[in-house]
Amino acid sequence: MARRLHELAGAEPERRFSPYCWRIRMALAHKKLDVETVPWRFTEKDRIAFADTDRVPVLEDGDTVVHDSWDIACYLEDAYPEAPPLFGNAMSRGQALVIKHWLEQVIHPLVARLIILDVYSQLHEKDRQYFRHSREKRFGMSLELFCSQSESALRALRQSLGPVRDTLRRQDYLCGPGPGFADYLLLAPFQWARCTSPVRLLKREDPVHEWRERMLGLFGGLAGDAPGYPP
Amino acid sequence: MARRLHELAGAEPERRFSPYCWRIRMALAHKKLDVETVPWRFTEKDRIAFADTDRVPVLEDGDTVVHDSWDIACYLEDAYPEAPPLFGNAMSRGQALVIKHWLEQVIHPLVARLIILDVYSQLHEKDRQYFRHSREKRFGMSLELFCSQSESALRALRQSLGPVRDTLRRQDYLCGPGPGFADYLLLAPFQWARCTSPVRLLKREDPVHEWRERMLGLFGGLAGDAPGYPP
Repeated sequence: MARRLHELAGAEPERRFSPYCWRIRMALAHKKLDVETVPWRFTEKDRIAFADTDRVPVLEDGDTVVHDSWDIACYLEDAYPEAPPLFGNAMSRGQALVIKHWLEQVIHPLVARLIILDVYSQLHEKDRQYFRHSREKRFGMSLELFCSQSESALRALRQSLGPVRDTLRRQDYLCGPGPGFADYLLLAPFQWARCTSPVRLLKREDPVHEWRERMLGLFGGLAGDAPGYPP
Repeated sequence: MARRLHELAGAEPERRFSPYCWRIRMALAHKKLDVETVPWRFTEKDRIAFADTDRVPVLEDGDTVVHDSWDIACYLEDAYPEAPPLFGNAMSRGQALVIKHWLEQVIHPLVARLIILDVYSQLHEKDRQYFRHSREKRFGMSLELFCSQSESALRALRQSLGPVRDTLRRQDYLCGPGPGFADYLLLAPFQWARCTSPVRLLKREDPVHEWRERMLGLFGGLAGDAPGYPP
């Protein structure tokens, strides 16, 4: 039966920029699982109501429906144990959850301060009012004010990447010699930025930049060839 | 042949507070490996010169000598593959290195701002001048000034623990259902504090506090029974 991934899209249907959806696109490719992706906009809540959620990614895998990127990754790992592992064991899965929370609490908010106006400009017309209203409520300020300290946000972002930078000085991927779900977790905010914004998050000489180049080239350039700006 | 761990001690030889040494004490117990611990003071550089280092932990395991807590953990994992795993696979080991760097870059410096004067007061008389001089050079200020913003350091510490806090709401240990080396990495700065200082780093209702209680009870109370202050 069909495998379908409902994925956030911008005004252009092929512009897919959700970091949470990128986690799963990479995870599916890692598992060598074909998928049909279905573009979805923020305001199309009714189109994913069957999954009991109002957010993407939503995966339909035959009769199974899973939402939430973490739950989808765990589902893929457990449903396809013979395919290349995203975690490989329970200890690795446990630690990936720490890295997920670190990214969501520390890295995503700093990237947001750099790109959220660019994200806004990529949206479908029908999503703009919803996006502005919901985000301004969440941030407690206008999108313009939220993005007004970009120099200090960029400095903070580069400094906050220290733990992964030092790790990538010693090994090619967060998961060691090869990539795993933790690498897709880290790629996600970079892909969110690359697909929406011309901002350069990393210096060329940064080990994180070199790692990202490797990531963009995986699976025949899946992430690198997606519509976006040069890395 | 004998297995010996050279470990930092305070004025009282049984007061062992180095976070790097605690990583290894826990790792050895996890691997069910007996060890004789040897108290060492900062100024006794000559006593560990045989290991080509001037810092502890230093592990002697028969004819093998290993220093640096990360390298010792990797050595134990590889030399004793039949014993309970600290990582269990390469992906897990890779991610533990991310968590190690996050702890050293974010959490250790905040804990230091809360306890470094207490650490100083626990030192052997012969170590005090060395410690004050080397740390004041590193921090670029007096120990007293370094510790003078303890309220904001405590607030920042509790906030910075967010990623592990949210993880521990969902699972008992950072490594999932059971503890692994990443848990010993996180226990280390708490044990550094508990063995030197009466400061309370965590609120009782914090999931990190509950996790620490579990950690202090492991291996017959190895960490919890060590000379120190109540958690």
